[in-house]
Order: sequence, then C-alpha cells, then structure tokens
Amino acid sequence: MTYCIGMLMDAGLVFLSDTRTNAGVDQINTFRKMNIFERRGDRVMVLLSAGNLAVTQSVVTLLEERLAQEGENLMRVPNLFEAACHVGDCVRHVYQRDADSLRAFGIDFNISLIFGGQIAGESPRLFNIYAAGNFVEATPDTPYFQIGESKYGKPIIDRIFRFHSSLEDAAKCALISMDSTLKSNLSVGMPLDLACYPRDRLALERVLRIDLDDPYFLSLRAAWGERIQEAFSALPSLACLSASELT
Amino acid sequence: MTYCIGMLMDAGLVFLSDTRTNAGVDQINTFRKMNIFERRGDRVMVLLSAGNLAVTQSVVTLLEERLAQEGENLMRVPNLFEAACHVGDCVRHVYQRDADSLRAFGIDFNISLIFGGQIAGESPRLFNIYAAGNFVEATPDTPYFQIGESKYGKPIIDRIFRFHSSLEDAAKCALISMDSTLKSNLSVGMPLDLACYPRDRLALERVLRIDLDDPYFLSLRAAWGERIQEAFSALPSLACLSASELT
Repeated sequence: MTYCIGMLMDAGLVFLSDTRTNAGVDQINTFRKMNIFERRGDRVMVLLSAGNLAVTQSVVTLLEERLAQEGENLMRVPNLFEAACHVGDCVRHVYQRDADSLRAFGIDFNISLIFGGQIAGESPRLFNIYAAGNFVEATPDTPYFQIGESKYGKPIIDRIFRFHSSLEDAAKCALISMDSTLKSNLSVGMPLDLACYPRDRLALERVLRIDLDDPYFLSLRAAWGERIQEAFSALPSLACLSASELT
Repeated sequence: MTYCIGMLMDAGLVFLSDTRTNAGVDQINTFRKMNIFERRGDRVMVLLSAGNLAVTQSVVTLLEERLAQEGENLMRVPNLFEAACHVGDCVRHVYQRDADSLRAFGIDFNISLIFGGQIAGESPRLFNIYAAGNFVEATPDTPYFQIGESKYGKPIIDRIFRFHSSLEDAAKCALISMDSTLKSNLSVGMPLDLACYPRDRLALERVLRIDLDDPYFLSLRAAWGERIQEAFSALPSLACLSASELT
C-alpha cells in the first residue's frame, strides 16, 4: 500500500509521500514514490505514485526517457494540462505493453497518480491521474487529492486544510494525516518525502526526506498526541445529552 | 454502509451505531442496527449489526423467535461465550437458508456483528462475530471492535480510548469517531443509537437515540472542531524540520 497527498493552495503546493512497498506482509521494501521534474525559472512538476510498483516505475521511466528524445515531453509541453495529458499518455503506453500479460496472471493494471506544479505563465495546478490515463483537476472547493490508503488520514485534512491555508499549515496537516495513517496501516511506512512549492517561485523551496528519528517529526507526533488529549478533555460532558431516552 | 462501535472497559461497555441503510446512493433508509436483550438483574446483551439488511434482520428475528421457543436461547445460555456461539449458530442457520439463493444473484452473504454484555457471575465481555458464525473476543490490549465503515473513525479511538477509560470518555470518543465518519461517508447517517452499560449493573444505564438536532451532539461537534483547530495552531513550526535536504 501507499499513502500520498497533494495539496493546492493560493500560496502554492505541498506534496507528501511515504516510501513503503509491499507484496504481502513479509515482503516489504523502501521505494521513493515522489518524482520531480524541474527547470528552475520555467517549470516545476511533482509526481506521486501509488499502485503496482512495476507499473508506476515503468511510467516514471518512460517520462524520463522522453525527456532525452525528440517529440513531446514534460519540458516541452506549454502548460500543466498538457503535462497531465502527457503523463496520461505514458500510463496508456504502459497499459498497452503490460495489461494483457498482467491479466493472464490475475493482476490488475493498478496505478494512481497525483501530479502538480507550475509552468511559467500559469497558476499552480494539481491533478489526480487514473489508470485509464484520464484525470481530474483540484479546485478551491476540493483543493487536495489522496492516493493509496486515504481514509485514516482524511478527517484531519477536512477539518484543517483549506485553499487559503499557508504552505506551512498544509505541510503540518499532511504530516499529521500521514501520522494517523502510519499508526493504522502497516503497509504505509517511513521515511517520508515532503516537497513544498511557493507559488510563482518556479523552483521547489524544500524537498525533504524525513526519517523515523527526525526530531521535528517526533516532536510533532508527540505534541499532536498531547494536544488531542487536551482537546478531548475539554469537551462538554455527556451528562448534557438531551437525546430521547428509549428504554 | 454502516458504522458501529463496541467498547469494552474495566468500567463496563459502550455501544454506538448509526441507522442508515442504502442500496446505491438513491435508495437510503433508516433502520435501527442496535438490538437489546435484557433481563434486569440477570443479564444484558447488545447486538450491533452491519452487512446485508435482509441477512441481519433474519438473524435478529431468529434470535427473538428462539426466545419464545423451547431449547437454547439468549436468556437460557449460562455465559456470554455461549451467547456468542448461539448468535453464531443463528448466522449459520440463515446462511443455510439464504446463501445459495443470494449467490445465484451474485450477492455475498454479508454480515458482521458486534455482540457484548454481561451475565451474572461473569465480567462484561465483547465479541466480533463474522459471517461464518465464528468470532473473536476483545481483550484489554484491543478493547474495541468496529464494523462497517471503520477507517475514518479509527485514529481518534486509538489515540484516546483505553481499557481503563471511563464510560463517559468512551461514549464521547465513540461520538467523535462517528462524527468523523459521518462527514466522510454519505452512507453512514443520523440518527444514532447509544447504549452505556456500567459493569455489574445488570441493566443498561442509558439507551439513547441521538437526532440530528440534538443540542449535545451539536455542541460536541462544534467544540471538537474548534479544539482541533486550537490544537493544530499550537503545534511546533515546520521551520524546525531538520530532515535531510535532498535537492
């Protein structure tokens, strides 16, 4: 499994991914799920991937190979919509190559991508690209996408994160969402990759690998656990419950 | 879908269930998923159900019919283990009757139950009964069970609820867990049914139906939303992040 989140704001973009891959519980590995395509001053793109590792790696490799070739690639497309189309085309290319063989072994062609960034002349944009190569774009109403194990970490994002949040708050919120997911699903695991992009910078501000012993992440985990306890203790007493008695 | 939770404590038991049933998004109804079997002074049992409504209703009806018949029933079994076996037998009885016909229509025999209570002479006990009629029992290490849409509401329970929690805290925690689930899954819906059982009382203390306009539930929702915001605002700044820079 995997947990990745991409967040779109007025202020820019935040991306967070875990690094665990697994085939059963006794075969776990660490693979980076965040890929960056950047030409400073012109464009920044970040791709987060979930699904079958052989499929996601093929798509990323194809995107990279095309950078060195003639024809369309991520450095030549004029805008993020065309970039998302290009990523979708690469997904379809891998589907054409692999899907029948996978099907023969009862394996789904499973890939889900978060793709976002900014190209000079446009605002930052964020997409969720599906296995069929089609995609949806985030808007201020729903300014984030999750892929992989999304449910455990969703309530905190819905309570805290908004299109007008700061990059700092978005990154903290993503880390807390990830912490809840790490606690609940063994197939989501440290270390984490975090990327923050401030609007119109046309270069990533931070790209960080956060390890299990990172003092900030440890202090964030501990502080959140304590604050939640305090928040809970301050809630109104159940004695006030005026619901209709049934017995 | 459904969301139900049963919690076992030193201090007793708490049960909470929603009431929404659905077949697609355009066919939703309200059905009680909490059933109570009680002979005050001798035994209290609470059954929460998730799955195919035709299956869960059949099992509950069978349990009730057997109360009026000769032979084993929930009022005659000597302990909660035998009671859980009896519920499992009723599940298997319905399976024998319905599973083949359901299969012919491509429908799974889908039922999941939380069953707990106390019979005089024993401590309170809590079980999770599966569609095969087998079951597991809660222990102080894992003192709760969820059925139905469990993921959204799990992190808050894991952070707050313990075997040594009070009934009051357990009920509040269950309500907050339900609130997060209600926000995230349209197929979980109000009103709620809440039952609190203090150890050795051998009678339920509270059985409440909580409606959408219940002032306590509204105040709990609002207070929790505010407290979470405050807790978040007080977290350490990301500027302290000492993780290794990758670019």
